[in-house]
Amino acid sequence: MPEIKIFTEANLRSAVQLDGDAVACVEEAFHLLATKDVQMPPILSFHVPDYNGEVDVKTAYVPGLNEFAIKISPGFFDNPKLGLPSLNGLSVLFDAKTGIVRAVLLDNGYLTDVRTAAAGAVTAKHLSREDSKVAGILGSGIQARLQLEALTLVRGIEHAVIWGRDPQKTLTCALECAEKLGIKVITVSSIAQVMAAADIVVTTTPSDALLITADMLHPGLHVTAMGSDADYKMELAPDVIPAASLFVADSIAQSVKQGELRPAIAAGNVTDPSQFPELGQIIAGQKPGRASAQDITICDLTGTGIQDTAIAAFAGARANAAGTGTTIDSDH
Amino acid sequence: MPEIKIFTEANLRSAVQLDGDAVACVEEAFHLLATKDVQMPPILSFHVPDYNGEVDVKTAYVPGLNEFAIKISPGFFDNPKLGLPSLNGLSVLFDAKTGIVRAVLLDNGYLTDVRTAAAGAVTAKHLSREDSKVAGILGSGIQARLQLEALTLVRGIEHAVIWGRDPQKTLTCALECAEKLGIKVITVSSIAQVMAAADIVVTTTPSDALLITADMLHPGLHVTAMGSDADYKMELAPDVIPAASLFVADSIAQSVKQGELRPAIAAGNVTDPSQFPELGQIIAGQKPGRASAQDITICDLTGTGIQDTAIAAFAGARANAAGTGTTIDSDH
Repeated sequence: MPEIKIFTEANLRSAVQLDGDAVACVEEAFHLLATKDVQMPPILSFHVPDYNGEVDVKTAYVPGLNEFAIKISPGFFDNPKLGLPSLNGLSVLFDAKTGIVRAVLLDNGYLTDVRTAAAGAVTAKHLSREDSKVAGILGSGIQARLQLEALTLVRGIEHAVIWGRDPQKTLTCALECAEKLGIKVITVSSIAQVMAAADIVVTTTPSDALLITADMLHPGLHVTAMGSDADYKMELAPDVIPAASLFVADSIAQSVKQGELRPAIAAGNVTDPSQFPELGQIIAGQKPGRASAQDITICDLTGTGIQDTAIAAFAGARANAAGTGTTIDSDH
Repeated sequence: MPEIKIFTEANLRSAVQLDGDAVACVEEAFHLLATKDVQMPPILSFHVPDYNGEVDVKTAYVPGLNEFAIKISPGFFDNPKLGLPSLNGLSVLFDAKTGIVRAVLLDNGYLTDVRTAAAGAVTAKHLSREDSKVAGILGSGIQARLQLEALTLVRGIEHAVIWGRDPQKTLTCALECAEKLGIKVITVSSIAQVMAAADIVVTTTPSDALLITADMLHPGLHVTAMGSDADYKMELAPDVIPAASLFVADSIAQSVKQGELRPAIAAGNVTDPSQFPELGQIIAGQKPGRASAQDITICDLTGTGIQDTAIAAFAGARANAAGTGTTIDSDH
């Protein structure tokens, strides 16, 4: 009689927030990815062309963890016309010893938002200058807000500079961030202004054409490019990666396929992607990180299945401990 | 407020049985695969080596259907030592227009059993001689039982011949089938005896070494090989496929990767897999099927995502109409 817990978005929002615990959870996930024999298959991805939709399935099995998760993320980009959010989805938690379903996390994409932002915090913690004070954000959506919040968890951010394509949305984003985070947030009209002002820049757009060019980089800068997660997206010009002192990705294989290495390789600016370290290797001390305050560091985050297993296991344990959720006996 | 239905195995067993409706559902799925612009990505598959486990994720989007499903199938082959079934899993049904979760089908693999057996019926209906009377089964597990039952839905099967590695299990299987189906069922001690006696043979084993050789084929025979669904399994000797009058697969791409074309190509017995038709093309009349009563036909079934979408949508509609299941508001 396998008992299965069903958790709703509300249960999971109560259980997990973007905070130091979530950042530690994702940091540990990347550490495991570098140090354990993790099984992380390529992303299953398909399009629903009739409705401007795409669906990604991500997972990872980590030896030693009691559970693994499989996360399904539909993105249907005509949904806003229907008054619905573009992003959705759920995770399923399985017992790692038996493959039996333990819990279904009906989070509507909330845990993806949290683990994606937490990865931004982990990246900044390990690659940006410790004295970074000015955050730059490209984009004005949910990740623009969460990535800025994530930076404040790991660096003494004093103010932020935001650019977005839609000035009104960007202003709303800036006002909300300023109120929530208690820091000064200004909007600017060009990406170059963000790049010039910031110590850490996070790109959060779904752009399919370059936003950042190599001439916008300055000594000491750290850039986290988290927007591109599909084989038609890009935020960095092909010459940006070779111009950095250090380029890192959450997964080199995914960056080559869905991330910023794809256009850089296509343009001939990168020929050997295996030269680049992964974020987990930096965290685990297997590869060197930033060497000096003058270094320009760039990290491409494509979103990995190990983050999904880690955040789902973490959220399931928290939601269980809180006594929330509905128990279903799947036999009856 | 997205309302999500949670259906248990019991709900789904009440809603769907292996019958003419289930066979029609799977037949229509293969017809759609051949005639519509179906999105069916490669299977996501990974191993859990510490516990002799593997996990497959299958899906397909079919233009015109209101829903698509994603099915997760864990197989943990040490589970029987713990008193648990090896196979498990669930399907999730999504609204095809918005990607929003509509239902979670906690079927513990039941719907996979049904759609797999139904595909055996569809295959026999379109490829075996209409006057086939003797069924041959290799294997003694759940699919041995269901595939035999499936054959009785489409052909006038008068008796069956079963071979399995474990004589006691094979005898139990034969007794149960005879009682349930009301036909004579005998067990034999060699595969050659099954092959010689039968008009239709279905192979249902997890074998990783050949069971059937070309010399066992006789004019008029139809063979459905449904056991191999992984890159280390095989049931047919490499010379069997070229010896047939007609070889068909549910998916040629999957047969090359996980099915019977894999060892045949590796051994050099098949060089151009694109020459072979898919089952849906035969059903849709796009490619010729059996040409004469003397033809030897073989079909490799690897299990396709379109079957999973079709059976999940069918089961969800039935279970909804029956008023079963638990409704969860995923926001609250």
